[in-house]
Amino acid sequence: MATVKLWSDAEAEADPRVKAVFDDIRAVRKSDFINNFWRALANQPALLESTWSRLKVVMGKSDGLDPLTKELVYIAVSITNGCSYCVHSHMAAARAKGMSEAQHEEFLAVVAMASQTNALATALQVPVDPEFVI
Amino acid sequence: MATVKLWSDAEAEADPRVKAVFDDIRAVRKSDFINNFWRALANQPALLESTWSRLKVVMGKSDGLDPLTKELVYIAVSITNGCSYCVHSHMAAARAKGMSEAQHEEFLAVVAMASQTNALATALQVPVDPEFVI
Amino acid sequence: MATVKLWSDAEAEADPRVKAVFDDIRAVRKSDFINNFWRALANQPALLESTWSRLKVVMGKSDGLDPLTKELVYIAVSITNGCSYCVHSHMAAARAKGMSEAQHEEFLAVVAMASQTNALATALQVPVDPEFVI
Amino acid sequence: MATVKLWSDAEAEADPRVKAVFDDIRAVRKSDFINNFWRALANQPALLESTWSRLKVVMGKSDGLDPLTKELVYIAVSITNGCSYCVHSHMAAARAKGMSEAQHEEFLAVVAMASQTNALATALQVPVDPEFVI
Amino acid sequence: MATVKLWSDAEAEADPRVKAVFDDIRAVRKSDFINNFWRALANQPALLESTWSRLKVVMGKSDGLDPLTKELVYIAVSITNGCSYCVHSHMAAARAKGMSEAQHEEFLAVVAMASQTNALATALQVPVDPEFVI
Amino acid sequence: MATVKLWSDAEAEADPRVKAVFDDIRAVRKSDFINNFWRALANQPALLESTWSRLKVVMGKSDGLDPLTKELVYIAVSITNGCSYCVHSHMAAARAKGMSEAQHEEFLAVVAMASQTNALATALQVPVDPEFVI
Repeated sequence: MATVKLWSDAEAEADPRVKAVFDDIRAVRKSDFINNFWRALANQPALLESTWSRLKVVMGKSDGLDPLTKELVYIAVSITNGCSYCVHSHMAAARAKGMSEAQHEEFLAVVAMASQTNALATALQVPVDPEFVI
Repeated sequence: MATVKLWSDAEAEADPRVKAVFDDIRAVRKSDFINNFWRALANQPALLESTWSRLKVVMGKSDGLDPLTKELVYIAVSITNGCSYCVHSHMAAARAKGMSEAQHEEFLAVVAMASQTNALATALQVPVDPEFVI
Repeated sequence: MATVKLWSDAEAEADPRVKAVFDDIRAVRKSDFINNFWRALANQPALLESTWSRLKVVMGKSDGLDPLTKELVYIAVSITNGCSYCVHSHMAAARAKGMSEAQHEEFLAVVAMASQTNALATALQVPVDPEFVI
Repeated sequence: MATVKLWSDAEAEADPRVKAVFDDIRAVRKSDFINNFWRALANQPALLESTWSRLKVVMGKSDGLDPLTKELVYIAVSITNGCSYCVHSHMAAARAKGMSEAQHEEFLAVVAMASQTNALATALQVPVDPEFVI
Repeated sequence: MATVKLWSDAEAEADPRVKAVFDDIRAVRKSDFINNFWRALANQPALLESTWSRLKVVMGKSDGLDPLTKELVYIAVSITNGCSYCVHSHMAAARAKGMSEAQHEEFLAVVAMASQTNALATALQVPVDPEFVI
Repeated sequence: MATVKLWSDAEAEADPRVKAVFDDIRAVRKSDFINNFWRALANQPALLESTWSRLKVVMGKSDGLDPLTKELVYIAVSITNGCSYCVHSHMAAARAKGMSEAQHEEFLAVVAMASQTNALATALQVPVDPEFVI
């Protein structure tokens, strides 16, 4: 039940800006599948362009973090923000990028651990140790 | 400005349960440093014990995720929850575990990306694609 | 799938306190439509009364902010809190109050921008500049 | 107590990428003042560039929303995310852009109203009305 | 639409670790009903074991807080985190533990009050009074 | 470092609306102490009046929940929202209303438990059991 229209392929074909982004998503991902996030964002072509062009850079291959680690960080943020759609789509991405069952279990354990110690540190208003300050 | 007393080493020495946890933290971490989180939690010995014993397992060496990845997931949750103490302490831990500048920059970029797409997906109430459902 | 019963018009008619609030909602909004939020809150008549009487003042015509700006602020909070119902209902209200497509796109861009810089400022624990302090 | 070094003007001068961004911030804002957010982000030059270049577009003059409305939406997100730095810096920006006391009070009232109805709608798990669905 | 398989009773019977936890849940709760949270967590047997064994202690009978108060605190956290599943399951638990309509209404009023004053205190960045510091 | 001026007693005396609220706070609480939250909100007299008049009702004596339970629910929301000021002020209130060390420890344990199971339920996107639906 989106708050905006989800663009069909036919509608996207008829709008040059949306078509260009959809074409690029398909090329980069080597798949014909365009997920609903982009079909919703197509209503705002400038935002569609800027979001996709940035995502392509951030989540693409790089010298820093490996693709699976990036997905796990992405999902950790999405869980904590309570974004149901994002959890679903990036969990699927993590699996596509090779997340094993053991990695999934450890990831969940770390997220649960952080969630509870975050709550405790905030509840106790623990002051930052001088040792942690730059 | 904690909402509880922070236990000194002398006070911890005088309480067998707290002393046992502090000793174990020092042994596991091979360092004499006990950070304020544990000094605050010492007011609740049972919670101190259960939290430390679980943290030791979750963040310890394992077959699943490497130590740095676990720290990054931990920090991602902590940032999103707005836990200042946790960001400080685990950023220090990530550096101690070898996080490079390039990894730090990429990590920040992924967290920023996820934060904004989480907001957009929620704003647009994007429905989960059938392809993502188990 | 509410955690409480949603009151029908017939049920509301039979309870003087609920009837009075529903009548006032219809009079103020010049519409017969009562949305589910109020039908759920009808189970707690005192809370229904205090919430509606306050909402009527806050979201009503005033000298300060125009009605559309108030809706946008409302939606910004609702997105960040991840309140699906609130996003739906206030996005509909923003459209009813004349939000254009260009305004919608800019609003989304600002929310996405704030979400990512919030995450970065928290990740970096940026200290407040003396210039910003009153 | 940032988790990274805050770059001085002298340090920024010595790095062409950081210098270019700082120069542009000063030119766009017609002020010599560079706030700590950018001094912290200077440690990650690519992220500094992409964040500033996007912020300049999003928060700049436009056909959609007026500058003050954009600041209010920004602050609403920042309050809800609990970002202390962002609340301080954008509240200062809202004042610089002409926010009156009456507007400030109404803004606070709307944020408080949304925060409480968000909590109630989530507590009651109110189902979205068919009337709100696109 | 879980991101993992929900284990049936037959599947749980075939895995000794999962069976042991499910048996214990049924024994402790004196009910044959196993809710979906545990059926989802069954995919990660070690996490299933540690979560249940901890929950049993924390939510069990104790000298400190009565069972209903613990449920209300649990729901308050769950509402604020926007966890739909948790609100549903613990609201059912609160009712099973005797929550009256008057208590429900007061609970909602307190949650709504806290949500709005949290937003105001953050918006105004109110400094902690020296009187509140330990 | 508030984003607004904190009103002194002398300033409050000079404004009839603020004075009336401050007088009532002192009368209701049987104490001369006015905490900074109200001194900050004094800049917005109408909001000061509506917030205090509502708080007085919600947190006052009632037939539903006892005063300490209400404080614990309040703190649970405040922790989860990451409101440092609110955690400090209501933890002090809980102690003033008789919270024992055992109750404090149990409260923290429940908040930590809820925080982690919230994260797990969201991570796994557990569907609501039909048994929990009204």
